[in-house]
Amino acid sequence: MEALRQKVKEDGVVIGEKILKVDGFLNHQIDAQLMYDIGETFYEQFKDQKVTKILTVEASGIAPAIMVAYKFGVPCLFAKKAKPNTLNKGFYQTDIHSFTKDKTNSVIISEEFLDEHDRVLIIDDFLANGDASLGLNRLVHQAGAETVGVGIVVEKSFQQGRTRLEEAGLKVSSLCEVASLSGNKVTLVGEE
Amino acid sequence: MEALRQKVKEDGVVIGEKILKVDGFLNHQIDAQLMYDIGETFYEQFKDQKVTKILTVEASGIAPAIMVAYKFGVPCLFAKKAKPNTLNKGFYQTDIHSFTKDKTNSVIISEEFLDEHDRVLIIDDFLANGDASLGLNRLVHQAGAETVGVGIVVEKSFQQGRTRLEEAGLKVSSLCEVASLSGNKVTLVGEE
Repeated sequence: MEALRQKVKEDGVVIGEKILKVDGFLNHQIDAQLMYDIGETFYEQFKDQKVTKILTVEASGIAPAIMVAYKFGVPCLFAKKAKPNTLNKGFYQTDIHSFTKDKTNSVIISEEFLDEHDRVLIIDDFLANGDASLGLNRLVHQAGAETVGVGIVVEKSFQQGRTRLEEAGLKVSSLCEVASLSGNKVTLVGEE
Repeated sequence: MEALRQKVKEDGVVIGEKILKVDGFLNHQIDAQLMYDIGETFYEQFKDQKVTKILTVEASGIAPAIMVAYKFGVPCLFAKKAKPNTLNKGFYQTDIHSFTKDKTNSVIISEEFLDEHDRVLIIDDFLANGDASLGLNRLVHQAGAETVGVGIVVEKSFQQGRTRLEEAGLKVSSLCEVASLSGNKVTLVGEE
């Protein structure tokens, strides 16, 4: 994904040492062709895994996830952020802490749309400390389904996300790995 | 969009007389192939309008909007729900009342991504009273841009949305028009 790496370098805005804002093509304005190419790339990587469902969390995960789902020909399911304890009948529910927003959300998926026959590919826009993907993986387990992998658009490799996901037994594939945001500059893995 | 009409009939869950839940293919689990076909249909309808940007609001508008953007080869921009008065520098901002959730959200788009040269196609999943589309249209006007049309996946034709949008001078295209939800049953326009 050289096009993605270039965009992260050129359009990414560094805030502090840990936050990377990519509002120009992923988190606010979205490059649709890039999302399509991302869908194709994850499809190539996971096509032998008998994936039955793509799972993400609203809102920024939806654009890449829907393209992955389109390439696989399977449904895309997005976990919804809900007020805790208002909608817990018929739902799987877990708490996810957002690193960027420093806020914990309760997220839910309806029991209707995930069961023990599902083989799930989790897709998310960012991997920081891994809380979102680990939370989605908990929802998959609540349903008795299996997570076949986690596809990430931009990984901040200097944070603990990958380690935590791999410790949980998850296969992680990231399309762009950021080594550092030091000095107000995006340095990708391989560029250090 | 016969496939869409069938899905609304078969999978739509009627709540009361006014709320239609389509969590099976649009608002929670998403049918990616259907979204692609929706993208193609809106492209055919608006391809002569020199569209430069697709605008929607998070979260359920993103899936159809990204497919429309992909077909047009233009960026997709989604308005973000934000706490009022926390992020008003460099942003266009307006309030949108959600009919379904009975809640008013302040929504924003960054000034960076919309300007007076843009010709905007607004895409949304539902049209009820038109508040979301009218709010997005206000953001377009704040930017000095032009709205060339509003593409809606499911219109509840028994509510005031279309009338209000047309009174505001907007061209509205809906792919599925629901005439009534009376008697706990989905009746489409043309079926009455």
